[in-house]
Amino acid sequence: MRFGARILERAARLAEFTEDEGRITRTYLTPRHREAGEQIAAWMREAGMSARFDALGNVVGRYDGVRPDAPVVMTGSHMDSVVDAGRYDGIFGILTAIACAKDLHERGRRLPFAFEVVAFGDEEGVRFGVTLIGSRAIAGRFKPEMLDARDRHGIAMRDALVSFGGDPGGIAGLSRASSPPALFIESHIEQGPVLLDEGLPVGVVTSIAGATRVRVRVTGVAGHAGTVPMHARRDALTAAAQMALEVERFCAARTAELCGTVGKFAIPGGGAMNVIPGCVEFSIDVRSGDDAVRRGAVRELESSLASIAAHRRVKLEWDAFFTLDAAACDAGLQERLARSIAAQGLAVRRLPSGAGHDAMEIAHIAPIAMLFVRCGNGGISHNPLETMSAEDAEIATGVLLHFLERLEP
Amino acid sequence: MRFGARILERAARLAEFTEDEGRITRTYLTPRHREAGEQIAAWMREAGMSARFDALGNVVGRYDGVRPDAPVVMTGSHMDSVVDAGRYDGIFGILTAIACAKDLHERGRRLPFAFEVVAFGDEEGVRFGVTLIGSRAIAGRFKPEMLDARDRHGIAMRDALVSFGGDPGGIAGLSRASSPPALFIESHIEQGPVLLDEGLPVGVVTSIAGATRVRVRVTGVAGHAGTVPMHARRDALTAAAQMALEVERFCAARTAELCGTVGKFAIPGGGAMNVIPGCVEFSIDVRSGDDAVRRGAVRELESSLASIAAHRRVKLEWDAFFTLDAAACDAGLQERLARSIAAQGLAVRRLPSGAGHDAMEIAHIAPIAMLFVRCGNGGISHNPLETMSAEDAEIATGVLLHFLERLEP
Repeated sequence: MRFGARILERAARLAEFTEDEGRITRTYLTPRHREAGEQIAAWMREAGMSARFDALGNVVGRYDGVRPDAPVVMTGSHMDSVVDAGRYDGIFGILTAIACAKDLHERGRRLPFAFEVVAFGDEEGVRFGVTLIGSRAIAGRFKPEMLDARDRHGIAMRDALVSFGGDPGGIAGLSRASSPPALFIESHIEQGPVLLDEGLPVGVVTSIAGATRVRVRVTGVAGHAGTVPMHARRDALTAAAQMALEVERFCAARTAELCGTVGKFAIPGGGAMNVIPGCVEFSIDVRSGDDAVRRGAVRELESSLASIAAHRRVKLEWDAFFTLDAAACDAGLQERLARSIAAQGLAVRRLPSGAGHDAMEIAHIAPIAMLFVRCGNGGISHNPLETMSAEDAEIATGVLLHFLERLEP
Repeated sequence: MRFGARILERAARLAEFTEDEGRITRTYLTPRHREAGEQIAAWMREAGMSARFDALGNVVGRYDGVRPDAPVVMTGSHMDSVVDAGRYDGIFGILTAIACAKDLHERGRRLPFAFEVVAFGDEEGVRFGVTLIGSRAIAGRFKPEMLDARDRHGIAMRDALVSFGGDPGGIAGLSRASSPPALFIESHIEQGPVLLDEGLPVGVVTSIAGATRVRVRVTGVAGHAGTVPMHARRDALTAAAQMALEVERFCAARTAELCGTVGKFAIPGGGAMNVIPGCVEFSIDVRSGDDAVRRGAVRELESSLASIAAHRRVKLEWDAFFTLDAAACDAGLQERLARSIAAQGLAVRRLPSGAGHDAMEIAHIAPIAMLFVRCGNGGISHNPLETMSAEDAEIATGVLLHFLERLEP
């Protein structure tokens, strides 16, 4: 095995850079972010690349091409994690690219392009509630007001960035919008069960799903659990429960490309066993690779939840506060990636990505491709039970290397 | 108006003894408990009664009968409150009884029984999670191990009682089990909409509902909101939502005497917008005046929730940790109370109490009666919006006085 075992070893090593004893949590602009980035930069240098932190805390590695003025092919993924994360989400896309560079370097092979590997400092958005910070900046879409976002301790991103050693004044200069890379290719663990269920190690991503997120507040009337007859209640909890089931029912009844999730659901103040809840707040996350399907679903859900609220005489507040459109993967690059998979003797499975990825942002300035790698353990991710086999890491790295070596941008 | 306006004034005065600025919260063995009790004792003395704190912090007032060896008729209710409470829950039953004693005293009238008014120190159980502490002790049912219960700051009830000036060693002596009162009558705001909906100021309680409380934990599989297809999910949130709706549906479909409430409902850790919840914990409170109806409902709900869990491939944990049987009101006393209501020219409405009351405990040693008073504002209680009119307080006090003056125990 040329790559797989070492990639898993390195993922285990990076898992040690965590804010939480006994589990993996690595958020943006923390000491663990710096340590993980320094380790990644060291591996990049060992692979024959130059490597440095940029103004926002991304680590950028570069394996020069045959000529100084060669175009750039960019790859990479993120080095931050969710709270209590798995080892491979984001990390795999960085390590597989470094493994390719190292192999080229050891063979003394230069490509007709400069190969840049970016370890993005933030994709998950855990600390400041702003996602895809690193890739946004490279796409020239970082907004200066994002620096005002604060973490749960009240620390502004601007101050955290300065403490980290970054440079708020240098962010605008990170944009590649005026001289974009020829293409961006991201390898990533699937984070779902599709490849696992079909017995395939890798797949070609067709598009990255768009998402709409809604904050919902249901207000009924609190009351004593023993004294208000069932028919006289305006129970916010059962109203919200019916709404959560409607989100599930509606999305399950549509195409396989639509997902709807109620991920947060709470009675403000926690409620009491003997009190009919007067208020419930919950979130809805709707995703689809097809923006029209998603927008239609959000419209229909708003309408059907309003009907439930009217029927139950509760008040509905609906705040669709976040929207991200889907990003299509480039058809020509999908075809090239498919050929590199077929070259390993494997069946080619094309599938959408339900999760967002750094490639979504880079899609604003360059054609993108994504390679998915099988996720073990039922497809579980954002969870310490996330697994990837060394064999699959080996195959995926072989596919990426094959793809890169045949590329003439 | 002889009683009503003053009772409302005094309820407003007691509302000032609160732990929370701007809202009413008065829990057991706090400085506010002592101050409220001292104010109540002062009003008792003004009404011609003796008054003192007992070993558990109840305030016991006594208006002597015609003879020193006359039997005892006991009344009263509780002086503690829930968090962010209304003014009348508990308090009304104390103030209306003091108003009766004061009227008898001013008229120089003695009854053929000693009239005892107890302001129970704890009924709601907010501070130590043990309810009905005061009435339990008088019924001889206080268990010494209850003194080990701790509040959220870790303070044991025993230590809080000593600091308050109470006497853990004197609790056993509070029991009236060997020389019980001839009867116990409690006046209380209805805390529901039945009298309000029927345009009646007072009603005769037939029984106090029994209750079963269940802690439920649903465990599914957490997953990424964008990557796990709807059909492949084992979503703890939608499973729990379906269960909450089943509790509502089942109880609404039965008799008007069955209530089922999901009052707590939470994703441990709070969940995240982009994660399918892997676990939900919620509570079920089932009440009925008929113990067989309640027990049957709990059995059927456990079975139907297990079916939902099996169908959705999630795990169900069911902990029916608390049960309190219903307490019937004495038929003869109900009839006497009905006559006192009819004597005011009012229609007699008999109704069960869905809420628990101090009378439930005293029912173990003496026949009980309860007079309900109309609750304004849609019947809302355990809430600052709880209201009672001075006119209804006047009528209820007149009914109680009529009842007492015709009593020959």
